[in-house]
Amino acid sequence: MQPNVLICGMGGNTLPDSVKQDDQPWLAEDYSRIRRFSEQLCAPLAPEDMGLQACPEVSPPRWHLAHTTWFFETFLLSPHLPGYRVFHPEFEVLFNSYYNGIGEQYPRPQRHLLSRPTGEQVLAWRQQVDQAMARLIAARPDLSALITLGLNHEQQHQELLLTDILYSLSFNPLAPALTQPQPITGEPGALTFQTFAGGLVDIGAHAGFAFDNEAPRHRVWLEPYRLANRPVTNGEFRDFIRDGGYRRPELWLSDGWAWVQQHGIQRPLYWHDDLQQHFTLAGRQPLQAGRILAHVNYYEADAYARWAGLRLPTEAEWEHAADQVSVTGHFVDSGTCQPGAASDAPLSHLFGDVWEWTASAYQPYPGFQAANGAVGEYNGKFMCNQMVLRGGSCATSRDHIRASYRNFFYPHLRWQFSGIRLAGDAQ
Amino acid sequence: MQPNVLICGMGGNTLPDSVKQDDQPWLAEDYSRIRRFSEQLCAPLAPEDMGLQACPEVSPPRWHLAHTTWFFETFLLSPHLPGYRVFHPEFEVLFNSYYNGIGEQYPRPQRHLLSRPTGEQVLAWRQQVDQAMARLIAARPDLSALITLGLNHEQQHQELLLTDILYSLSFNPLAPALTQPQPITGEPGALTFQTFAGGLVDIGAHAGFAFDNEAPRHRVWLEPYRLANRPVTNGEFRDFIRDGGYRRPELWLSDGWAWVQQHGIQRPLYWHDDLQQHFTLAGRQPLQAGRILAHVNYYEADAYARWAGLRLPTEAEWEHAADQVSVTGHFVDSGTCQPGAASDAPLSHLFGDVWEWTASAYQPYPGFQAANGAVGEYNGKFMCNQMVLRGGSCATSRDHIRASYRNFFYPHLRWQFSGIRLAGDAQ
Amino acid sequence: MQPNVLICGMGGNTLPDSVKQDDQPWLAEDYSRIRRFSEQLCAPLAPEDMGLQACPEVSPPRWHLAHTTWFFETFLLSPHLPGYRVFHPEFEVLFNSYYNGIGEQYPRPQRHLLSRPTGEQVLAWRQQVDQAMARLIAARPDLSALITLGLNHEQQHQELLLTDILYSLSFNPLAPALTQPQPITGEPGALTFQTFAGGLVDIGAHAGFAFDNEAPRHRVWLEPYRLANRPVTNGEFRDFIRDGGYRRPELWLSDGWAWVQQHGIQRPLYWHDDLQQHFTLAGRQPLQAGRILAHVNYYEADAYARWAGLRLPTEAEWEHAADQVSVTGHFVDSGTCQPGAASDAPLSHLFGDVWEWTASAYQPYPGFQAANGAVGEYNGKFMCNQMVLRGGSCATSRDHIRASYRNFFYPHLRWQFSGIRLAGDAQ
Amino acid sequence: MQPNVLICGMGGNTLPDSVKQDDQPWLAEDYSRIRRFSEQLCAPLAPEDMGLQACPEVSPPRWHLAHTTWFFETFLLSPHLPGYRVFHPEFEVLFNSYYNGIGEQYPRPQRHLLSRPTGEQVLAWRQQVDQAMARLIAARPDLSALITLGLNHEQQHQELLLTDILYSLSFNPLAPALTQPQPITGEPGALTFQTFAGGLVDIGAHAGFAFDNEAPRHRVWLEPYRLANRPVTNGEFRDFIRDGGYRRPELWLSDGWAWVQQHGIQRPLYWHDDLQQHFTLAGRQPLQAGRILAHVNYYEADAYARWAGLRLPTEAEWEHAADQVSVTGHFVDSGTCQPGAASDAPLSHLFGDVWEWTASAYQPYPGFQAANGAVGEYNGKFMCNQMVLRGGSCATSRDHIRASYRNFFYPHLRWQFSGIRLAGDAQ
Repeated sequence: MQPNVLICGMGGNTLPDSVKQDDQPWLAEDYSRIRRFSEQLCAPLAPEDMGLQACPEVSPPRWHLAHTTWFFETFLLSPHLPGYRVFHPEFEVLFNSYYNGIGEQYPRPQRHLLSRPTGEQVLAWRQQVDQAMARLIAARPDLSALITLGLNHEQQHQELLLTDILYSLSFNPLAPALTQPQPITGEPGALTFQTFAGGLVDIGAHAGFAFDNEAPRHRVWLEPYRLANRPVTNGEFRDFIRDGGYRRPELWLSDGWAWVQQHGIQRPLYWHDDLQQHFTLAGRQPLQAGRILAHVNYYEADAYARWAGLRLPTEAEWEHAADQVSVTGHFVDSGTCQPGAASDAPLSHLFGDVWEWTASAYQPYPGFQAANGAVGEYNGKFMCNQMVLRGGSCATSRDHIRASYRNFFYPHLRWQFSGIRLAGDAQ
Repeated sequence: MQPNVLICGMGGNTLPDSVKQDDQPWLAEDYSRIRRFSEQLCAPLAPEDMGLQACPEVSPPRWHLAHTTWFFETFLLSPHLPGYRVFHPEFEVLFNSYYNGIGEQYPRPQRHLLSRPTGEQVLAWRQQVDQAMARLIAARPDLSALITLGLNHEQQHQELLLTDILYSLSFNPLAPALTQPQPITGEPGALTFQTFAGGLVDIGAHAGFAFDNEAPRHRVWLEPYRLANRPVTNGEFRDFIRDGGYRRPELWLSDGWAWVQQHGIQRPLYWHDDLQQHFTLAGRQPLQAGRILAHVNYYEADAYARWAGLRLPTEAEWEHAADQVSVTGHFVDSGTCQPGAASDAPLSHLFGDVWEWTASAYQPYPGFQAANGAVGEYNGKFMCNQMVLRGGSCATSRDHIRASYRNFFYPHLRWQFSGIRLAGDAQ
Repeated sequence: MQPNVLICGMGGNTLPDSVKQDDQPWLAEDYSRIRRFSEQLCAPLAPEDMGLQACPEVSPPRWHLAHTTWFFETFLLSPHLPGYRVFHPEFEVLFNSYYNGIGEQYPRPQRHLLSRPTGEQVLAWRQQVDQAMARLIAARPDLSALITLGLNHEQQHQELLLTDILYSLSFNPLAPALTQPQPITGEPGALTFQTFAGGLVDIGAHAGFAFDNEAPRHRVWLEPYRLANRPVTNGEFRDFIRDGGYRRPELWLSDGWAWVQQHGIQRPLYWHDDLQQHFTLAGRQPLQAGRILAHVNYYEADAYARWAGLRLPTEAEWEHAADQVSVTGHFVDSGTCQPGAASDAPLSHLFGDVWEWTASAYQPYPGFQAANGAVGEYNGKFMCNQMVLRGGSCATSRDHIRASYRNFFYPHLRWQFSGIRLAGDAQ
Repeated sequence: MQPNVLICGMGGNTLPDSVKQDDQPWLAEDYSRIRRFSEQLCAPLAPEDMGLQACPEVSPPRWHLAHTTWFFETFLLSPHLPGYRVFHPEFEVLFNSYYNGIGEQYPRPQRHLLSRPTGEQVLAWRQQVDQAMARLIAARPDLSALITLGLNHEQQHQELLLTDILYSLSFNPLAPALTQPQPITGEPGALTFQTFAGGLVDIGAHAGFAFDNEAPRHRVWLEPYRLANRPVTNGEFRDFIRDGGYRRPELWLSDGWAWVQQHGIQRPLYWHDDLQQHFTLAGRQPLQAGRILAHVNYYEADAYARWAGLRLPTEAEWEHAADQVSVTGHFVDSGTCQPGAASDAPLSHLFGDVWEWTASAYQPYPGFQAANGAVGEYNGKFMCNQMVLRGGSCATSRDHIRASYRNFFYPHLRWQFSGIRLAGDAQ
C-alpha cells in the first residue's frame, strides 16, 4: 500500500551503477509505456467507478491517476525543469498521499469526495506532465534514478488501482464485472516440500533497481527448513473452514482471534457464504477448488498453517529459496487479474499469482538508512506493526518484481491478492 | 429528510375532496414538469459529482434521481399498471430508503458506493417509468392522490439534492461553484415584533394536499406572544459569536453545549474562520451581514435566542401567525439557492429563504393516525428526538409549501437551509 | 437523573408562601431524617460496592453520598455560614455534577476512579456539613427554601443510588442480593379504562414545594381521552415478546428500531433469556406475571402501546387524571424496592411502583423561566431530547412526589423503574 | 501483561534438569514468600483502591490477588489434589484471564465491576488455596515445574499490580501517594558507548527456569554494534521535547505520528505540562533530570533514538551484551518503585530500573513450540503486533529476571516502567 523507494540517494547525485546514464532511450520508452498502462487499466471502468472508495485503505481510481502524476510534478518537474508551471496550485496538497516533508495532505478517508478535478481534468494534467517529462528525460540523464523510482511508484499504484476497485465494487449487489472470467481446468498439483540446509546466507538487494528497504544486503543465519512447492488452494482452505477453522481459538493468534470474534469472520474476503462462489474482477464467479487462494490476511494465513501442523516461512527463508528460481509466473501482463491453477512443479508460483505472507514483521535490515528528504518517508516510517509479503501477484507487473522485493501490510488486511505458502522446520 | 405522507388513505380508496378526479390534465402536466425539474437541477453537476456522499445523512444526486423513480415504480406501477415489468429486479432493494414494509434496504452510509447503475442507466429507468406513469395517469384517475404524494415526495428530494450536494462539495478545497453568486445590497431591515393575543386556536391542515403529520386539525391554547418580523441575519449572528456565544455554557442546552465541546464548534456550518466568507452553491463567497442566516442547528438557534433574551416560537405560534399571510417568498424557483436580504416588512420571510427552527419537538397531533401499509412509515415513525421547522427555504419549491407544513430534523443537524426567527411572551 | 430545582428564586430573597419562616423545627428534623436515610440505604452494601459505576449514566454510591453533601457546602454553607471552611478545597470540582456556573467538573464516566476520598472520609465530610447545617438552619430561617431544595435534591439521589447500584451489580455473575425477595400472590387485576372529557384544563404546580420545571401553572386544551386503571404487567409484556414484539419493525419508532437492531435487544433490562427470571435488588428472582413491569425504555413503551392498539398518555392527560387521586402507593419507604402486584382498582398505582413514560417530550411550560445563577442549570438546560415520566416509583420517597412532578430521561434509557400505562383517544 | 510460560512440558512429566525433585524445601518456602509478597504489596492500599481499573489494559488489585490464586486452583489443585473442592464454582470463569482452553472469560474491561467477591472473600480463598498447595507441594515433587511456573506467574502479576494501580490512581486529582518519595542527588552519569564485534552468537535460555518464548537457544548473526552504558534520563528526554520532538513528523514512525496527532501527545505519561513534576507511586513529585526516564512507549523511544542520531538495540544485541554482566540493579525488592539515578558505569542498569524497548518485534525463535493444552496459550498466541522489552524494572522482583527474559507490549502502551537504551552500528 505504501510505495517503496529507490535505494540510491534521492538527489540524483549518487547515481548507482545499476542505473546508467546511457539508458535514456530505454527510459523514455518505459516512461511512456508505464504511464499509458495506468490509463489502459481504467478503460473498462465507467466514469462513475472512478471515484469509488469503500474504506480508508483504498483510493479511487481517479485519485491513483492523479497521485502518480503528482509524484512526477512534485519530485521531478517543479524542482528540475526550468520554467515549469504546476497545473494547479492546490493539487500539491490534494494529491499528496503521506509525505509530511512536502506539507499537508488531504484526509485519506475523504478521497472519494474529490469529484473535482474531474476525470477529464486529471487526464489533461497527465498530458501536461508527460510532455514536460519527455523534455526532462532528454535533458537530464542524471535524473534517471529518480525517474525510475517514479515509474516503479506508478506500477505499485497500478496494482493498488486494481485491488482497490475490486474492493469498492464488492459493495455493489449488482456484482459488476470488469474483465472476462478465466475458468481453470484439471486437478490442483500435489503439495510437496523441498528442504533447504540453511546456514549463513546473504539476503537483500544485490543488482539492478531496488527499493531502499531491500538494502543493505546482509548475512542471516538460517536453521534447516522446508518450503511448499506451491501456495494453498481454495479447496484446501475450504477444508480448513469445514474443519471448524474459524471457530477454534487454539488455531489463532490472540489478535487474530479477537479480529474473528469482533467481525464475525467465517471465510476469506469476497467468498459467498455458500463457499461455492466469490466476487472477482470478472464479477461473481464459481469458486474453483484448484485455484490458488487469495484475499486472506496474516491471521488467517497463520491459523491455516497451524491447522496444517506447519508454519509460514520467514522472509529470509523465502528469499533464499526464491533466489534459486527465475522470475516467471502469472502477472498483470496476462490481463486476467486472478490467481491461476495450482501447479505441482517444484518451487512454483513464487512470483505472481498471490503475495505470500511471511512470518516476518516488517523491520529495517541491519544498517538500513532511509534517504534524506521527503522521499525518505517511503519505507522507513512504516517499519512497525506490519508483516512482510513476498513475490508479487496476478496484479503486479512482471518487470516490477524480484526475489528481494519486500511488500508489507497490516496483519488484518485482506484486499490484496494475498495467499499462503506453507513452511516448516527441516525434519 | 424523511419525506412526508399524504393525509388521505393510501389505498386510493378514500380520495379526499381536495384531489378531485377531474384534475387529470393538471396531474399529467405537473408530473412531467416536476420530474423534469429533478433532472434540470443536475445540469450544472459534473458526472463525477453525481455519486458524492459526504456523510450518512446526505445522499448522492444520482441516488436521489433513482430513489424518486423507485417510489413511482414500487407504489404505483408495480401494483397498479397491468403488465408493467420492473426495470431491474435488484433496484427494489438498492433504492429503498427506509420502508421496512417493502423489505430490505441497501445501507444508507454506502450509497456513494453504488457506481452502478450509472447515470445513463438511471436516466433510462426514469424514462421507462415516466412513460409508464403517463399511461397510468390517464388510465387511473382514482390514483391521483397517491401520484400527488409521489410528486410531493420528489419535490422533497429536489430540496435534499441541493442541500446534499452543497454539503458534499464543501469538503473539496477547490470550492466548486454550481450557480452564479447573487450579491445583495443595502442594509438589513430593522428587527421588530408583532404581538398576538393567543387563545384557543385551530392548528393543522385544513384544505388542499397535506401530509398526514399535519392532521388532524385541532385546537391548541396559546398564551399571548410576540414574533419577530423577519429571521436573524448573518451580521446579527456574528455579533453573538463576537460576544463569546460559542464559549458561554450558560447560553446553551446541555446537549447543545456537549455538541459544541465535542466538535469544537465556533461558527455556523460553511463559515470560514475569518467570519468573512462562507461556502455556498456559488462557491466561496463574501459573508454579507444583511443576508438571512442559514445552516445553524437547533442548539445554535436556541442559544442565540437565549443570548438575545428571547426564545424560539412554538410551532403552533408560528403557524397561527403564518396563517395570516400568503405564501410568497424566495424559493428554489428563483434559481439562486441562497437566502436573500432581510426585509423590514411585517411578518416577512415566513415562507422561503430558510426553514425556521421552532421550540417544538416533533410529535403526533392529537388523534394522529399513520396510513396503513408501507407508506405509513413516512412520518409517524420519526416522531421522536427531532424538532419541527417551518416555512420552507430558498431550496423549496413554491408550490410545495404551506402554513401547516411540518418539517423535522435532529437538533444537531445543520446542512439544511435552517435559520432563526425570534419569539417571546407578550409583554 | 438530573435533579430538579425549586420554583422560587434561589437567592432566598423571594421566599414563597409555601415555605414559611416558622417551619424551622420541621426543617431541622427533616434535614436530619433525610440525610440519615442516604446513609441507611448504603447499609447493605459492601465497601467494595460503594465505588461501582457500570456506565457513564450511573454513579457510585460513595459519589452520591459526596455529591449531595457538596450541594449543601457549595450552595448553603460556603456563601451563607460565616467562618465556614470547606472540608477539602478540591472537592468543589470532584463532586460537582454538571454546574458550569460553579466551574469545572470531574469527568462523569470516571467517577468510579475516585477511590479517594474513601468512604470513611466521605462520612467525616457529611458529619462536618451536617453539624454546620444545623447551625445554619437555626440561624437563617430565610434560607429554608434553598435548604428544602437541597433535601429534595438528596431524595432524588437516594433513588438514583438504588437504581445505579442495581445496574452496576447486574454485571456480576454472582447476582448479589441487597434486600429480601418479596413474592407476590394472586392474579393481576383486570385492565380497564376510564374516560376523561378533556377540555381546557390547568396543568402545573399550584401548592407547596415544586421544582421550577413544574411552573408556571397554565392552560392546556385536551381532547377526550381514556386512561388505563393500572400499569402493564410482566405477564402482559411477555405476551408482546412472544408475539414477535421485538422483531416487527412496524411496531417501532424509527430510532427505537435502530436501537433494537444495533444492540440486539430481545427483552426488558434485567430479564433472563428464558423470560422466567430477572435480576433485582434481591438478586436473581422468578419473574412473576402479575407484577408491574419495570425497566423498559420509551421505545419499548411506545412499541408495546402500538402493539396493543393504543398509545401512551401525554403528560397533561396523565396529570389531569392524577390530580383527582391522592398520593398513595408503593414507595421506597416500604423497603422492598420492587414494583408490586397489579391491582384492578380504578386509577391505581399512579404514584409509586414505576415511573410512567408519557408521550410528551420534555419541554418548557409556556412562560417558564429558569432561576438565575448556577442552580438555574437544574432543569432548563435539559429540555431537549428527553421524554417526561410521571408518578414516582418503588424507589421514590413518598413525601417527594406529587401530581405535577416531571421526571425526564432519554428515550433509550432503561435502568430506572420505568413502566407503561396505556391510554387512548376517547371512543 | 501476558504472563509467560515455563519451557518444560506442562504436564509435569518432562521435568527439566533445572527443576530438580529435591528442591521441595526450597519450593515450599518460596511459595510462601512469594504469595505473601502479593498481599504485602496491597498493604498501603485503601480498600477502595482495590477495585480500581482505569482502562481495559489494567486490572484491579483485588483481581490480581484472585487471578493468581485461580492459577493454582485451576492448573494444580483441581487436577492434582485428590478431594480438593473449589472455593466457588463461578470463580473459574470470573478470574480466567485469557485461557480459551479453560473456557469462557469475564470481559476484561469490566473487571472493576466485580465488587464481589469482596477483599475479605478473596483473602479467604487465598488461604484455602495456600493450605492446599502446602499439601500438594509436599505430596507431589513431580509437579514442581508447574508450581514454579505459578510462582513466576504470580511475580509477573505483582509487577502489574503496581503499574496498574499507579495508572488508576493517576486519574485522581488528589494524587494519592502509596510510598515515600526517594529523591536522588548528584548529576547523571555521562553517556558513553561500548562496541561489540558481533558475529555468530547464541541467544536464548540456557540454564535454570525460563519461559517457553526464550527457547530454543539458537544462533543469530550480529553485525558489529555499540550500546549505551545506561538508559536515557528525564533531563535528556526533556531536551528532546524542548527541541520540538513531539512536533516533528520526520522523527516518528508513521503509526507513532498518527498516535501523537490523534491523542495530542506532548510528553511522557504522568508528566505534568510544566515538565517539572510527574505523578508517581509517591504521589506528585518533582521531575529530577538525573533520574532514569520511564513511561514512554515504543514510538517515543524510537523517535528519541532517531532524534539522537542513533537507534534502539535489537533484542539479540541487548541479550548478547547483557549475558556479560550479572543480574544486579534496582528492583521491587528495594521498596521504592521508582527508577533510580543514572550511573556512568559501563553497561549499567541493564537489569532493573526500566524495561528497555528493543527494535525487535515479538516473534517466535526458530524452532519455537508452544506447550500443549491451556498453558500453551501463555506466549505463542501473543507473537504478533508487539515489541520486545528487556531487563526488568524497579517493579520487578530480582529473582524473576535474567538476560534471556523477553517481555512484550504493544508499541503504543506506556503504563509500564519502560525506558530507552540507545544503540547504533559500530563506527
